[in-house]
Amino acid sequence: VPSELEERLSVGCPQVQIGLKFESRDQRFTVLVTQLSNCSALCLPHDHNIYVRMAVLPCVGTSRCLFRTRAALPQELTDFNEVFGMQISQNALRQKTLRVDVCHTSTNGREKVLAAAQISLADLGSSEERTTKWYNLLSHSFE
Amino acid sequence: VPSELEERLSVGCPQVQIGLKFESRDQRFTVLVTQLSNCSALCLPHDHNIYVRMAVLPCVGTSRCLFRTRAALPQELTDFNEVFGMQISQNALRQKTLRVDVCHTSTNGREKVLAAAQISLADLGSSEERTTKWYNLLSHSFE
Repeated sequence: VPSELEERLSVGCPQVQIGLKFESRDQRFTVLVTQLSNCSALCLPHDHNIYVRMAVLPCVGTSRCLFRTRAALPQELTDFNEVFGMQISQNALRQKTLRVDVCHTSTNGREKVLAAAQISLADLGSSEERTTKWYNLLSHSFE
Repeated sequence: VPSELEERLSVGCPQVQIGLKFESRDQRFTVLVTQLSNCSALCLPHDHNIYVRMAVLPCVGTSRCLFRTRAALPQELTDFNEVFGMQISQNALRQKTLRVDVCHTSTNGREKVLAAAQISLADLGSSEERTTKWYNLLSHSFE
């Protein structure tokens, strides 16, 4: 039986594991960024940290819609295990798209996106359980 | 009971309905572009046709990975019902991301993307049944 690490690395392309939950009682949407895999496929300069930036788009009004994890040195599986939450109605949430960017800070101090996934929240139901899935990350050099 | 049209328009944001199928016997991946909804939210110049462009990314080698529907005048629900297919192994497909762009041709003849969805194919199983879902389209003005 292959380990989770072996299984992930056999995929070949970079992936991000994301858990989504909407709790209708509290009108609260939370995103759990668990981990990244196959970071070596990200074309990252040596010794650079990476982090995950998430945006709940379109972003309207004054509510916060942009979140960043701490930065970490890329491993074969890079753990984050950070949770981000926002207040939002289910109807509003169903019109949103979660944009997940893997970023690093370039030597001139600018935020640079290495790869991204985009998750439509049209189908997100209300549940006490978090739905956790792996999503392929598309390298920006391919877009 | 609201009609499908009423239900779609109540969502407010533009959406695309896509059906995905992978047939392991033929190693064939097919994408069905059914329809678009809420095209009025796309900020399209008056009297312009729209069409859907799809790319199976990353695109490697010589295999075809870019497909376009015919162009149509945007309606509240714009029907396409076009199917596109490619030969690919399931392992290769699971590393791909389907990029779905709603485009129009600008007055200077260039292809312009109005809105897009990105669908990770990491979880796509093999089945005789097509999995059809609505995906939110993210306007390029929000990206």
